[in-house]
Amino acid sequence: MVLLRSLLGDVLRRCRQSQGRTLREVSALARVSLGYLSEVERGQKEASSELLASICDALGVAMSDLLRDVSDSLVHAELAQAAPLRSVGAVPTAIAVVPAGARPEVVAAA
Amino acid sequence: MVLLRSLLGDVLRRCRQSQGRTLREVSALARVSLGYLSEVERGQKEASSELLASICDALGVAMSDLLRDVSDSLVHAELAQAAPLRSVGAVPTAIAVVPAGARPEVVAAA
Repeated sequence: MVLLRSLLGDVLRRCRQSQGRTLREVSALARVSLGYLSEVERGQKEASSELLASICDALGVAMSDLLRDVSDSLVHAELAQAAPLRSVGAVPTAIAVVPAGARPEVVAAA
Repeated sequence: MVLLRSLLGDVLRRCRQSQGRTLREVSALARVSLGYLSEVERGQKEASSELLASICDALGVAMSDLLRDVSDSLVHAELAQAAPLRSVGAVPTAIAVVPAGARPEVVAAA
């Protein structure tokens, strides 16, 4: 099952790292504990709507842009999840390492 | 503050109603209580990632599509929220009734 909190955490972490900012800095701005933000980024905790809004503010990103990134990541995850059912003989480990932007059907057919 | 759970609830409700399905039917398929699903649709409860995946399954929609709809709704909500700050003299009640698809700048300038 593709879990929203995992992909959301990935996108939040990528966003923070692309800005060269630390967990400490963003957690202080978002008024959330460093440990909690870290758990959200690792997909171990669900972020409430209020907390997510605070994190977006701290990162200076619109929540709509964040969700669009998550939606794009989900498309890849959904394709990767569906691929083993469609292609008999596909190598599951090959599916698991599809990078963002790759064409899943090519990997599934390998 | 624009809250994700409110917009997510709106999109889930619109999706269910566009299929002509009842809360009872979808809640049974998603294995969640009718009351809880109703609260999620009204933006009063946060749906966990697992529950959201179950509701999407029950509705037969990809979570990525659902999130894209939510992202689109968020763009309008963010514009409506930002508009009163940008346009002195705008009528707040006019901002609040911007329908999806409307051009917010036209309403803000009215």
